[in-house]
Amino acid sequence: MVANLGAMDQNNVVVMESELRSLVEQIFIKLGVPLIDAQTAADVLVTTDLRGVESHGVSGQFSSYVEDYRNGITNPDPVVTIVRETSASANLDCDKGLGIIVAPKAMEIAISKAAVQGVGMVTMHNTRHMGMASYYAMMALEKDMIGLSMTSAGPSVLPTFGAIPRLGTNPIALAAPTSQENPFVYDAATSVIASNKIDIWKRSGKKIGPGLVADMFGSPIMDSLDPNDYVGPALLPLGTTRELGSHKGYGLACMVSILTGILSGGGFDSFPGRPNYYHMVAAYKIEAFTDVSIFKSTLDDFIVALKNTPPMPGQDRVLVPGQKEWEVFEHRKKHGIPIHKDVINWLKHTCQELNISMNFQ
Amino acid sequence: MVANLGAMDQNNVVVMESELRSLVEQIFIKLGVPLIDAQTAADVLVTTDLRGVESHGVSGQFSSYVEDYRNGITNPDPVVTIVRETSASANLDCDKGLGIIVAPKAMEIAISKAAVQGVGMVTMHNTRHMGMASYYAMMALEKDMIGLSMTSAGPSVLPTFGAIPRLGTNPIALAAPTSQENPFVYDAATSVIASNKIDIWKRSGKKIGPGLVADMFGSPIMDSLDPNDYVGPALLPLGTTRELGSHKGYGLACMVSILTGILSGGGFDSFPGRPNYYHMVAAYKIEAFTDVSIFKSTLDDFIVALKNTPPMPGQDRVLVPGQKEWEVFEHRKKHGIPIHKDVINWLKHTCQELNISMNFQ
Repeated sequence: MVANLGAMDQNNVVVMESELRSLVEQIFIKLGVPLIDAQTAADVLVTTDLRGVESHGVSGQFSSYVEDYRNGITNPDPVVTIVRETSASANLDCDKGLGIIVAPKAMEIAISKAAVQGVGMVTMHNTRHMGMASYYAMMALEKDMIGLSMTSAGPSVLPTFGAIPRLGTNPIALAAPTSQENPFVYDAATSVIASNKIDIWKRSGKKIGPGLVADMFGSPIMDSLDPNDYVGPALLPLGTTRELGSHKGYGLACMVSILTGILSGGGFDSFPGRPNYYHMVAAYKIEAFTDVSIFKSTLDDFIVALKNTPPMPGQDRVLVPGQKEWEVFEHRKKHGIPIHKDVINWLKHTCQELNISMNFQ
Repeated sequence: MVANLGAMDQNNVVVMESELRSLVEQIFIKLGVPLIDAQTAADVLVTTDLRGVESHGVSGQFSSYVEDYRNGITNPDPVVTIVRETSASANLDCDKGLGIIVAPKAMEIAISKAAVQGVGMVTMHNTRHMGMASYYAMMALEKDMIGLSMTSAGPSVLPTFGAIPRLGTNPIALAAPTSQENPFVYDAATSVIASNKIDIWKRSGKKIGPGLVADMFGSPIMDSLDPNDYVGPALLPLGTTRELGSHKGYGLACMVSILTGILSGGGFDSFPGRPNYYHMVAAYKIEAFTDVSIFKSTLDDFIVALKNTPPMPGQDRVLVPGQKEWEVFEHRKKHGIPIHKDVINWLKHTCQELNISMNFQ
């Protein structure tokens, strides 16, 4: 879910990127994360908020990361080991490291392999939450590569016809470079919605729309629902019902489980007895397949053709994947990031506990 | 759409696999296709019908292939050229060759590269229809690899909010090997339905269900529709509406366009002035990432966990991707393939024209 451009709301405090970055970095350091990793983690989280992806940034995920460092579930200073490797692939044991810290390292490996072999692909196991998957895919852009990333998580999504969640929201992200247009950036769960959307709707007093979740028996709820009445986790795969193709969203979620958890030797979404996060990143060097300039100009043409599609009645325009996020990004870079007062209060409280001075309120 | 197990229907003739294979092969040969390619093409088409994927087999696609050979759109004896290559990647100019003939060659290249480098990825341009995408993904299974394939086609699918089709149905297929269970095989369009489903519904007198297509102004039709009243192409991306996540199906379709058409230097779905088919296949060698035996047993466990999910009210069981197709495959291997009498009549007519004797009626 991409936020609006950050229009003032009495429940929000607007914070400039640099202030937020500095604070997040300090918190990671206080939790035992080495400086360079803390900088990486802060960049992933703040970039996420700059792009308006509230559900995965400082507002949506940071508190759970802090909690998991404190209760020992996440290792602040992991020793990442390459357990298998070829010239084009690697599998990493991430030593309980946080995904937003280890996945950038994995993507660097994938990019360096793709630079030589044309393709690089790296799986990760024994790791934690990956945050916004497109961050790692986007690392490929400046190298004139296509970036791909996916991650599987603990079960919150029902298989088609199922009454118990067996799959994570298992997003897929792909970034591809352009010449004139903003880069193509796709990033979405294979479920109808990501699970933390429900918390955001609770906070904002919004209803859960029809067809997004199931009832406690697994039947899709086709009316609006108060988020406080939701008995989850019972998210639906993309497609909502079998008739509308939920077996496709379900199958894509399984595909992500296979390419992340099972291929990395880690397990799968509902594998018992552990935090089930597994990731995969890949880089494809465009020059290995075609001219970079032709690729970029053709992708420009594709994006322009999509944008110029006449809209259906009631709509102003056709968007392309990532467009809304680029628009929010440009705005928030200049005007700051709106953060809900509940999150500000949590930050204050955390800073007090960790003995960090906080420069904004 | 997977057919039922082939229950007798007065409109169907049941044909044994070997008879159908032989006939299809002879037709390809008469159209100028070399023997070995004709055998490959027949295997792809008959395997598709054996798996119950009517929309892409002899019943669904063969007549259009024959027509395109006859009118010179498809080259019966293409010289496939590797235009760029690295140790892990290749891009093929397919010389107007039919996808079901050139994609197996591409997958063999991907597999041979993955055998050495862990990963192999091959793009294809200047080609024609790919048929059932999972055929090529499944070629990886016996090599203890994961197979991936995708293809983009001419525009029939609306972007979210758009009134004019800009995207193909752009399917993604993934196959992964197991030990005890049937292999995992996912294969589905990124649109709610594949376009030739509508022809099949016309033939069988079925209605188009709600939420599968749009009206001529781009608005999703949320009631049932007589297929004869459908003014297309105006298929909807997986997700149907923006509220139900159609921007995800739309974004996945774009991802396929990028990894097939644009990365191969060919173009994109709505690129003007040519038959816009582009493909990509990839192979991932499991041993490069983890132990093959662990991978297979974990995938078995995953499949069993999914199958054992308690069903929602009104459903008997939870299926896994490819399960229904395996069940149909087993049945049709033994009992034959039901083919609609209209298709039989077309086969008869074609055999007469090509001076081939047909052993079943």
